[in-house]
Amino acid sequence: MDLFGVLHLDELSHGLANLSMFPYFDMAHYIVSVMALREQPGALEVSRVSPIACWFSSMLFCFGGAVLSGIMLAEPAIAPLSNSTSVLLASIIWYLVFYCPMDLVYCCAALLPLRLVLSGMKEVTRTWKVLGGVTQAHSKYKDSLLVMIAIGWARGAGGGLISNFEQLVRGVWKPETNELLKMSYPTKITLIGAVLFALQQTHYLPLQKHHLMLIYTIFTVVNKSRMMLTGSSTSPFAGIESAIYKTLFTGCSPYAALTDDLKKACIDNSTTDTATSTSTTKESSENGAAGNHTPVSHDKGQSASLKAKEESENAETSCKKTD
Amino acid sequence: MDLFGVLHLDELSHGLANLSMFPYFDMAHYIVSVMALREQPGALEVSRVSPIACWFSSMLFCFGGAVLSGIMLAEPAIAPLSNSTSVLLASIIWYLVFYCPMDLVYCCAALLPLRLVLSGMKEVTRTWKVLGGVTQAHSKYKDSLLVMIAIGWARGAGGGLISNFEQLVRGVWKPETNELLKMSYPTKITLIGAVLFALQQTHYLPLQKHHLMLIYTIFTVVNKSRMMLTGSSTSPFAGIESAIYKTLFTGCSPYAALTDDLKKACIDNSTTDTATSTSTTKESSENGAAGNHTPVSHDKGQSASLKAKEESENAETSCKKTD
Amino acid sequence: MDLFGVLHLDELSHGLANLSMFPYFDMAHYIVSVMALREQPGALEVSRVSPIACWFSSMLFCFGGAVLSGIMLAEPAIAPLSNSTSVLLASIIWYLVFYCPMDLVYCCAALLPLRLVLSGMKEVTRTWKVLGGVTQAHSKYKDSLLVMIAIGWARGAGGGLISNFEQLVRGVWKPETNELLKMSYPTKITLIGAVLFALQQTHYLPLQKHHLMLIYTIFTVVNKSRMMLTGSSTSPFAGIESAIYKTLFTGCSPYAALTDDLKKACIDNSTTDTATSTSTTKESSENGAAGNHTPVSHDKGQSASLKAKEESENAETSCKKTD
Repeated sequence: MDLFGVLHLDELSHGLANLSMFPYFDMAHYIVSVMALREQPGALEVSRVSPIACWFSSMLFCFGGAVLSGIMLAEPAIAPLSNSTSVLLASIIWYLVFYCPMDLVYCCAALLPLRLVLSGMKEVTRTWKVLGGVTQAHSKYKDSLLVMIAIGWARGAGGGLISNFEQLVRGVWKPETNELLKMSYPTKITLIGAVLFALQQTHYLPLQKHHLMLIYTIFTVVNKSRMMLTGSSTSPFAGIESAIYKTLFTGCSPYAALTDDLKKACIDNSTTDTATSTSTTKESSENGAAGNHTPVSHDKGQSASLKAKEESENAETSCKKTD
Repeated sequence: MDLFGVLHLDELSHGLANLSMFPYFDMAHYIVSVMALREQPGALEVSRVSPIACWFSSMLFCFGGAVLSGIMLAEPAIAPLSNSTSVLLASIIWYLVFYCPMDLVYCCAALLPLRLVLSGMKEVTRTWKVLGGVTQAHSKYKDSLLVMIAIGWARGAGGGLISNFEQLVRGVWKPETNELLKMSYPTKITLIGAVLFALQQTHYLPLQKHHLMLIYTIFTVVNKSRMMLTGSSTSPFAGIESAIYKTLFTGCSPYAALTDDLKKACIDNSTTDTATSTSTTKESSENGAAGNHTPVSHDKGQSASLKAKEESENAETSCKKTD
Repeated sequence: MDLFGVLHLDELSHGLANLSMFPYFDMAHYIVSVMALREQPGALEVSRVSPIACWFSSMLFCFGGAVLSGIMLAEPAIAPLSNSTSVLLASIIWYLVFYCPMDLVYCCAALLPLRLVLSGMKEVTRTWKVLGGVTQAHSKYKDSLLVMIAIGWARGAGGGLISNFEQLVRGVWKPETNELLKMSYPTKITLIGAVLFALQQTHYLPLQKHHLMLIYTIFTVVNKSRMMLTGSSTSPFAGIESAIYKTLFTGCSPYAALTDDLKKACIDNSTTDTATSTSTTKESSENGAAGNHTPVSHDKGQSASLKAKEESENAETSCKKTD
């Protein structure tokens, strides 16, 4: 790549590739992750009622990617616990964020400038995690692009992908939402990273690894900072996504209307299944049981917690009042 | 087996045993599986809202058995993804069934004659999958009949056994029903197949493998075709099941009435737990929260989706209207 | 340890350490476990509706620890099934407890003196299971205290820790409660045991293994017997727990009130999310959907089943009426 040579970026990318994540970047990842947990609805209450459930939840936020990719590759799910130093570090941060006297640590870290830096550093760890997953999958399944993408994705966005089960630890169960049904920005950007690194690994992408690492890291950090500063949550891929969606997944067939009819019939059927009680109970059953049948109509409440998680990184928090 | 020699079935069974499942039988399996997913309530909506959740769900329908048996044997759950050709084939079929312009593929495949042939071919793959599971378990656990049965069953009926978690991908959660609580016909026939092949493998069943394959395949194909043509969903084992159940699991003790009383007491207790709100909310809580306590009383709605899955293979679909 | 020498306890502890769990202690474990399942609300109904779900649930009660630790260490989850003798023994006990004519077995075993002996013997198996887990983890992860504790805990209290998924087999789903959110006594005592044995294994605890086995076994058996005889369910660690909790997890900061405000804000927000329907549906949605948001407010109903499980071992059951 001449462009890299011309811009003297070659050294920079080599320097970045040799950067050690431990301890500073890892710490930033733990702090941002534990703060994201703390900002989940109900998490503070759980931290008072059961510190052990709260700790376990925090560990899933911090090491969820390693646990998920471990399960997918039939490697011990307990392995992340064996790295005592990382676990100790994450546990100390968990303790300070949740139980520090006067809530000092959380309130400091929640200040916009510091949070901006921490979130940027967390984004850097994403590159390393995705690359680690892709490399690990490559060593086991030489030619399988799909496995590399899946493991890279799982490693980088594990906390989000297992959020249903992480929530279960805290006694929360929201089956109507998950990261596959409605992807958040971090999950999307990780998926794109996994695809790029897997293509690089199999030499379909004519780029050197450290150059790709530099480009991807800069993109994620800049984009994250932009989103936090402007408070916007619009994905930079919204246009491309929409174009792909319209091309591939809707079609402009004369039967589109028919498909809609079919859909309606489906919904009607499923509604009839549950609409066995009297009229006063209709609305309530739509909040309760009917959720099983028509996941999409609950779109509004659906990703509340995921949004909270995301927004928590985009805006200064209510903790400001305490300054 | 002289009978096989006399009827010239020996060659036929050898020919069947040497049949390759790839690509035609595998394709039939994918088509029927993805169509079964499409006929689940709410699946069409999910396919519009989140193609990726829909694709993942389809893969679980197609490769659920391999994933489940992989987890049970501590082999990578991701392994099915490493077979690129199969995944590509299944993905193309998923795309055509859900998003084909004018819905051509689904409507054609849903025509009774074609569906009959496809379902018959899918039943043939069942034999291979069950046998594959039993053989794999035999290579790891020499003498354990139970492990062989479990892995053969999981491999052959995995999609059904993990249906709770497959539904979760689509935002649907029906804890009150699962394939163990109320087995569908495919799950039952697979269990019987797993028992037979495990007995053959351990030489308790004095039959040669290819003969058993022929008998089991013919039985499943004929029975499936009969069920689709007559539209009946009565299991051919209903009589035997009922006899076994009455002999083993009820008893004719004078204390049966007492057991009923105990049962009633249990139900009363659990009902009381939730009946804390006012009368207007009673019906609704029975639709919602109470489901947690009294799984059996919801029997009617319980297996709606599983039935739909089954019936979808037994009847011509509403797509007819579009011809 | 001179004390052991003086009291002639050395021989006793050696004798205990060489005790074989099979078959008598294992049998006691199976009987007490299956009886605990039978006393779960709704379990008797499930046993009539689907013996196979009931059997699978019983196996999870009996071998849950081995399954869970297997999954955590990426060893086959199916492995416990490969021990035919144990599975056969547990299955026979399952059959007798649930389907014995005249309910003889259950009613006899539920008599206080017999139940006392059986529960004591079950407690003895706990020592062996925890030690087995710690040793197994030690052989894989030499220096990781945390992994040893986790595997020892999982092996000893697996049935409780996976109770959410065990309940799912029976069609019951109670996401608002789990053993991490609200630990029962057996889970706590097992955790303490796992910590002690892990410390002994890594030589931080200056005790010989067989001495620790003797001390821990005597403590669990005596404590269990005391709880069953007095019908009290107060944990012997209540005081210590409370002290640790007050020291570490509350703090006496002037911001405690503020934290409460934050908490309230959280709850209010989450309530508002669901309070979109009319007033008549409010109460019902609090029973149904709102459970997802405020796990803690449902504390009363929360651990009903876990309590039932525990109490079932502390009190003589209603079966008395049948004598």
